[in-house]
Amino acid sequence: MIEQLNNIELICKKAKDASYKLAVSSNKDRNFALKLIASQILKSINKIITANRKDYKAAKKNKIPSALLDRLLLNEERIKNMAKDVNNISKLEDPIGKELIKKLRPNGLKITKVSVPLGVIAVIFESRPNVACDVACLCIKSGNAVILKGGKEARHTNEIIIEIIKNTLKKTSLNANIVSSLKNYSRSSVNYLLKMDKYIDVLVPRGGKELIKTVRKNSNIPVFSHLDGICHTYIDKFANEKMAINITYNAKMRRTSICGATETILCHKDVSKQVLPHLLEKLLNAGCEVRGDSDVVSFSKKIKKASEQDWKKEYLDSIVSIKVVKSLNEAIKHINNYSSKHTDAIITNSKKNAKLFLTEIESAIVMHNTSTQFSDGAEFGLGAEIGISTGKLHARGPVSTQELTTYKYIVKGNGQLRQ
Amino acid sequence: MIEQLNNIELICKKAKDASYKLAVSSNKDRNFALKLIASQILKSINKIITANRKDYKAAKKNKIPSALLDRLLLNEERIKNMAKDVNNISKLEDPIGKELIKKLRPNGLKITKVSVPLGVIAVIFESRPNVACDVACLCIKSGNAVILKGGKEARHTNEIIIEIIKNTLKKTSLNANIVSSLKNYSRSSVNYLLKMDKYIDVLVPRGGKELIKTVRKNSNIPVFSHLDGICHTYIDKFANEKMAINITYNAKMRRTSICGATETILCHKDVSKQVLPHLLEKLLNAGCEVRGDSDVVSFSKKIKKASEQDWKKEYLDSIVSIKVVKSLNEAIKHINNYSSKHTDAIITNSKKNAKLFLTEIESAIVMHNTSTQFSDGAEFGLGAEIGISTGKLHARGPVSTQELTTYKYIVKGNGQLRQ
Repeated sequence: MIEQLNNIELICKKAKDASYKLAVSSNKDRNFALKLIASQILKSINKIITANRKDYKAAKKNKIPSALLDRLLLNEERIKNMAKDVNNISKLEDPIGKELIKKLRPNGLKITKVSVPLGVIAVIFESRPNVACDVACLCIKSGNAVILKGGKEARHTNEIIIEIIKNTLKKTSLNANIVSSLKNYSRSSVNYLLKMDKYIDVLVPRGGKELIKTVRKNSNIPVFSHLDGICHTYIDKFANEKMAINITYNAKMRRTSICGATETILCHKDVSKQVLPHLLEKLLNAGCEVRGDSDVVSFSKKIKKASEQDWKKEYLDSIVSIKVVKSLNEAIKHINNYSSKHTDAIITNSKKNAKLFLTEIESAIVMHNTSTQFSDGAEFGLGAEIGISTGKLHARGPVSTQELTTYKYIVKGNGQLRQ
Repeated sequence: MIEQLNNIELICKKAKDASYKLAVSSNKDRNFALKLIASQILKSINKIITANRKDYKAAKKNKIPSALLDRLLLNEERIKNMAKDVNNISKLEDPIGKELIKKLRPNGLKITKVSVPLGVIAVIFESRPNVACDVACLCIKSGNAVILKGGKEARHTNEIIIEIIKNTLKKTSLNANIVSSLKNYSRSSVNYLLKMDKYIDVLVPRGGKELIKTVRKNSNIPVFSHLDGICHTYIDKFANEKMAINITYNAKMRRTSICGATETILCHKDVSKQVLPHLLEKLLNAGCEVRGDSDVVSFSKKIKKASEQDWKKEYLDSIVSIKVVKSLNEAIKHINNYSSKHTDAIITNSKKNAKLFLTEIESAIVMHNTSTQFSDGAEFGLGAEIGISTGKLHARGPVSTQELTTYKYIVKGNGQLRQ
C-alpha cells in the first residue's frame, strides 16, 4: 500500500513539473492537441464502447440505481458528442496571457497584470465517464495540468479515455504528464491525494455531498465545489400568471435531479389565488409532492404542511416547498436567509421589482422571467464546465476555462530602488 | 462571557443585514461618506492623539518592543496622512456594478456578469491603528460591511477612530452598522468570530504567523492572508554588475522586516566572482549576517554555511542566504521549489532570460531589474491595500478594492423554458 501511495506522490510531482512548461505553451499548440484528441476519440469509438460495456455489465450486476447506470453508459452518439465538446473547447478564446491591467508608474516601473494558469488541478469525480474527457480538455485549454480520480464503477471507460488522451499528447509538443490519473481506487488513495498541497493548486470534487464534505474537511488545498442547490422561484404580484405557471413548473419538474432545479416556490399573496390552484394542479398531476405553509395547505388536502426543515432542504426529487409571502421584501429576506446562493429567479412584469430582486439577492445567479434550470455553463455559452461553484471567491457559478486561471503581476524596471 | 459572545453574533448579524443595502448603494453616496470621514478625522486630531497617548503609555509600561511602539504611535502628520488615504480611496474607480461579460443567447436570454461586493469582511489586526481606518474605508468603497477586531494594545486609538467613522456614517445615507468592531479582546472572542460563517464572507488576519495559522485552522470562512514572504533575487549571467549590487542590496536591506524583502540571493556562477565580493562587503559592512553555499563561503570567513533550512526561511531580519547557481534553469527550479510564491526578481540585460524567468516563475509578483521591496499596493498604484495575499485564488498580491468584489450572473428572459 505504501508503494502505491508513493506512486500517487510521484504522479503529483510529475504533474507539477509538467505544468510549468504547459503554462508557457502557445494557444496554437494547445488547440492542436485538443483537435487531435477529438479526432482520436472518434477513431476509437469501438474501443471505448468495449471498455464501457465491461463497466456497464459490472454495474448492472452490482445493481447500481438505473439513473447512475444511464450516466455510466456511453454509446456512439454520446462519444461523438464528447469529441464535439473537445473541438468546441479548442475554439474558445485563449484564457491565458491576457493583460488585465497595464500601468506605467511615475518612477518608470512598468506593471502588467496577466492571466496565468492555476497550475495543477485534481478532479475527483463519480460515474459519468465523459467527465474525464471534458475536464482534461478544459485543463489543457487553460494551461493547467490535471490529475483525475474517477469512480471505480467507470474504471475501464475512464482508463481507455485517459490512455487515448495521453497517447495523443505524445504526438504533440505538450508533455503527456499534464494529464494523469490514479488507478488506485481505495479511499486511502483519495485521502493521500488531499494532502498533496505541495503539488496540487485546486481540488474539484464532483459527486455527492459526502465526497465534497470529506474533501473540504480533510484538505487545505483550495476547493471549487458545489455544495447545495437550494434554488427559489418567486412569483411576484406583477407576474404574468401563465408565464409564472409555465416557468415555475419547468424550473421544478424539467429535471428534478440537477442543482439548478427550483426547490422552493414563493408566491405573492395578491396573486396566490389566481396562480397557485393551476400550478398546484399541474405539479400534483405530475406526481410532485407539495409541502406548503398554512396558506398553501388550504388549497388542497394533498398538500403536506412544510416544516422549518423544508425551507433548508435540497430535495433533488419530485418534491417542492411552497410559501405565500406578503411582499417582495419578504421574498428577498426569505431567499437571502435560506437560499444556498446558487440560483434564484423572480417572475414579474415590474421592471422596478425585477431590479430590486436582481440586485438584492445575494446568489451567484439571479434570473428574471426564466427558469432556474438554465443554470449551466453550456446554456450560458461558456463552453463545457468543470463544475458549478457555490463559493463566492474566485469562481462563482459555472467553472470553465477563465475560472481555471489566476493572475500574476509582471514588474519591469531599469534599476529602480525603493526609497 | 456567554452574553458577550452572543453580542458578537449580534454584531455579525447586523453587519450582514446592513451589507445588502450597502451592496446596492451608489458610488456617489459611498464617496460622500468617505470624504466626510476624512474631514471628520482632520477635525478630531487632538481627540485621536489623546486616545493614542493612553495606548502608547500603557504599551511603554508593558515594555513592548520599540518597533511595535513606533507602529502604534499616531502624531499629527500620521493622522493627516490617514485622512489623505481616505480621500484617495474615494477617488478610486467604483469597483462594483462593472459589466464583465454581456451575452445575448440564441434563445433570447440576456446574460450579464456583474461585479458585486463580497458581503461582510472581518479583519483581525494587530498594533497599527491606521489599519482600522484604511480597512474600513476600503470596505466602504467596495460596498462591503466590515467587522474590525483590533489588538488590545491599540484599543483606545482604534475605538476613537471607529467611533468617528460610525458617527460620520450616521450623517450619510449609509447605515452605521456597515462598520463595527469587537470590544471584547479575549482569545475566545476571536475563536467565536471564526465560527460566524453564516454572516462573514471573508476573513483577513493581519499579523503574526501564529494568528494566520490559527485563523486558517479554526475557520471554514475563506481567508485572504499572507503567510510567508520568501522572496528571491536572481543575478543572471547577463546582469549589469553595478545594478545587480545596488538592487540586491536594496531588496534585502532597505527594510528587512517587510514581506517583500529578499531573503535568498541566487547568483549565476559566471558573474559570481565579479559581483559577490562587492555585494558581500556591502552586506557584511551593514551588519547583515550571510549564510552561503560552499561557493559563497569561500569568499569570506565571516560567512556561515547555509543549511537546507535556510532556503526555506523567511528571516525578516538582517540575515540573507546566498547560493551560486550554474544556470538560469537551476535558478528557476530553486525558486519554484523554495519560494513562498510572493515576489521574485531577476537582474539581467538579456531580454530572453528575463522573459523565461518572468513566465516560468510561479509567483504572484515577478520582477525584472528592480527591487522586490516594491511589492506593495501603493507602489503598484492600486491605492491602499487591505493586505497582500499569497494564495493563488481570487486575490493574489495586493488586496485592494477590486479584490474585495466577486461577481454574479444576471439572466433576463421573457418566459424561456429549458427544453
